[in-house]
Amino acid sequence: MSENRTIRIGLLGFGVVGQGVWKNIEVNRSTLKKRLGVDLTITDVVVKNLERERAIQVPPEMLSSDPARVVDNSEVDIVCELMGGTTEALHFTRRALEQGKIVVTANKALICEHGEELFNIAQASGGHYLYEASVAGGIPIIKMIREGFIANRFRLIFGILNGTSNYILTRMEREGLSFEETLGDARSLGYVEADEALDLDGIDAAHKAIILAYLAHGKWVKLDSIICEGIRSITGDDITTAGALGYKIKLLAVIDRDFEANELSVRLHPAFISKSEVIAGVDEVYNGVSVSGDVVGTAVLIGKGAGQDATASSVISDLADAVAILQGANKLNTQEQKNCADQKRTECLELTSIDAHSGCYYLRVHVKDEEGVLSKVSDLLAKQHISLATVNQKQLKDGTALIMLTTRLSNERAITSAKSSLSSQGAVLSEPVSFRIFDPS
Amino acid sequence: MSENRTIRIGLLGFGVVGQGVWKNIEVNRSTLKKRLGVDLTITDVVVKNLERERAIQVPPEMLSSDPARVVDNSEVDIVCELMGGTTEALHFTRRALEQGKIVVTANKALICEHGEELFNIAQASGGHYLYEASVAGGIPIIKMIREGFIANRFRLIFGILNGTSNYILTRMEREGLSFEETLGDARSLGYVEADEALDLDGIDAAHKAIILAYLAHGKWVKLDSIICEGIRSITGDDITTAGALGYKIKLLAVIDRDFEANELSVRLHPAFISKSEVIAGVDEVYNGVSVSGDVVGTAVLIGKGAGQDATASSVISDLADAVAILQGANKLNTQEQKNCADQKRTECLELTSIDAHSGCYYLRVHVKDEEGVLSKVSDLLAKQHISLATVNQKQLKDGTALIMLTTRLSNERAITSAKSSLSSQGAVLSEPVSFRIFDPS
Repeated sequence: MSENRTIRIGLLGFGVVGQGVWKNIEVNRSTLKKRLGVDLTITDVVVKNLERERAIQVPPEMLSSDPARVVDNSEVDIVCELMGGTTEALHFTRRALEQGKIVVTANKALICEHGEELFNIAQASGGHYLYEASVAGGIPIIKMIREGFIANRFRLIFGILNGTSNYILTRMEREGLSFEETLGDARSLGYVEADEALDLDGIDAAHKAIILAYLAHGKWVKLDSIICEGIRSITGDDITTAGALGYKIKLLAVIDRDFEANELSVRLHPAFISKSEVIAGVDEVYNGVSVSGDVVGTAVLIGKGAGQDATASSVISDLADAVAILQGANKLNTQEQKNCADQKRTECLELTSIDAHSGCYYLRVHVKDEEGVLSKVSDLLAKQHISLATVNQKQLKDGTALIMLTTRLSNERAITSAKSSLSSQGAVLSEPVSFRIFDPS
Repeated sequence: MSENRTIRIGLLGFGVVGQGVWKNIEVNRSTLKKRLGVDLTITDVVVKNLERERAIQVPPEMLSSDPARVVDNSEVDIVCELMGGTTEALHFTRRALEQGKIVVTANKALICEHGEELFNIAQASGGHYLYEASVAGGIPIIKMIREGFIANRFRLIFGILNGTSNYILTRMEREGLSFEETLGDARSLGYVEADEALDLDGIDAAHKAIILAYLAHGKWVKLDSIICEGIRSITGDDITTAGALGYKIKLLAVIDRDFEANELSVRLHPAFISKSEVIAGVDEVYNGVSVSGDVVGTAVLIGKGAGQDATASSVISDLADAVAILQGANKLNTQEQKNCADQKRTECLELTSIDAHSGCYYLRVHVKDEEGVLSKVSDLLAKQHISLATVNQKQLKDGTALIMLTTRLSNERAITSAKSSLSSQGAVLSEPVSFRIFDPS
């Protein structure tokens, strides 16, 4: 390939991220040309609605509503799938990869649901599926794990992978606002996805955790086989109590590998995390990922997890890697493709069962403020062999009280049983709420 | 190249890092083979002293004391220069690159002094010079800037690049120890380089800053043309005063690009930095780098900046990139080589003169504790148009006092003049000490 050739890119989808890619390739065109030695040119833009007004005017001859015009065009070097969804996107990603094309994507849901098939197609056809922008927006976490830390096996990867929920938790903590109040603000700022469950019930972050688990360990994990809990049940009292005990509450993705037992735990849930952890200090819409490798030790990467420009930054870095592939690096370290083909290694890697999780817990029980209620609660916990580390009690104005406890080492089964026994007590006014206390050590 | 071939690596130097590379390739051999599709094999180890006992036993047939045996051996795919120094290392790096070989290095001093020549040789001969391990140990900051953030122009890069000085500052802060006491401990832990000036006078970190400046902006900066100040003059009183004002004192590397004026400022000095900055929270032997790109925004990377294993992790990641190059990616995004050849771009980029730095400052003046001394000091500062933000005074046991001031916006010339006027006052007992207050915004 000559140094001065033009790399032809077809965009499927021209929403926020697509327009960000267009805009930032324009802004830094000369810099990119110097760095890459080639010219990145978007030659085709495929949209659903040809009539819609957009901030960026695309010349009409480049615009179409037919993805096949890009996918089946032999002159397009790189297909950039930014349309989202898992139907059309699946169809056309499959079709592009089957032709041995390079597909760059930000579509985490598609990778989670169909990654195994798509990477297998890429592997078989000589295509490439690049997905830096699918996890943690502008943070190059995929490249860091795949290339920067290639010497490592990964004992623990954890972090904050959803900016919207982190923004809500940060404002609840800083301003003493309730979840509902903060959610209202987050909605009006346009931070919350149309399908709110993605942000609030942890599904978006769980998708990303599943992708990181695959990248680091070569194993595809199903969303319905892991703990996935969102932030809706967190109250200001939980955050205050956590703070007084030296913790913050963060929605954490945890990918925990036990090499001795050859087990993998992938989970996504709100957690108490010590303020002394760097990740606990990652606030607002920022994302942060902590990676512990057996060679490098622990490293942390923090940056914008979403937004037009940050996501475009990652898409463009994948375009640059695609250029290297087009220039001959057809065996670029796409370890996940190898992992995928390497069935023996992953077949015997077991997913830790949800029940098997052990650790310390925080438990909030809403009770009638009457004599003996704390002793009743602690008796019930003792029956489940749960011993307590701290106890906080708060009188509420309506004559009820909150008992907020942290436990010593316990486990999911004990906590679930305890919550169920507590619920059936007359003095307990609502379903008790528990959060795991995360200890990375 | 066949999938199952062996990549032959020659190590020049077998000290701490060399043995770390050997050990960690052994430990994760099967993982690396799966990820890379090839076997990394160290075939030659060159040492100065063949007789020395080492923790790792190298088979005698692999061991020699002649670097030429590796550098001129056509069967060696990658030369790994871990011998250090700038004489023999320069000679053999040059010779390897001239043959179009791939050289992987951790030698920051060599890159700083001779990088321009070495990258030019690599460029001309088709060789490659890879240096992830030269900056910030295990943190893949080179890859992050070069590839992960390839879409960006870099307004500001700053951070902590020397673990030893950061360890000393952390212990001084946490335990209220003096510089000398902490240095003693750091020495006995083996944290301080044999040539102590490298760690204590900021030279090691300045080398790394110069490499990052080249990587990000394509300009070679000479060590003697930048501000380079170490940590020897920092006292417990400075740290306490900083803390009370909401700052920490960190030895910061700053690479500040003004795109409008097309100027570049590279500097290395102790600085007051707001505790709310993530980098301020990077303690002990950890390194941390904050990168602000025009597309991605600000991202921070934190990890171990030194040590056998962390550095080996980065060397091995370069070996993996070298494998990709050997497999055909002969135009892998080595943007710095392009920058280097791209004289037009860097010729007109001016280095900001040291004098031109402006900002806020901290100033410590040791005075006789007598009437009117504070007013005398502030008068002198006013003459230099330095206005004060805060004033702290501390009586010492010997009847003298420390005046610790922070200024509003000022500049190097004013501060230098003020310090010189102050020194000549009878009431001022020693050379005043100043530190810059760093504000990344």
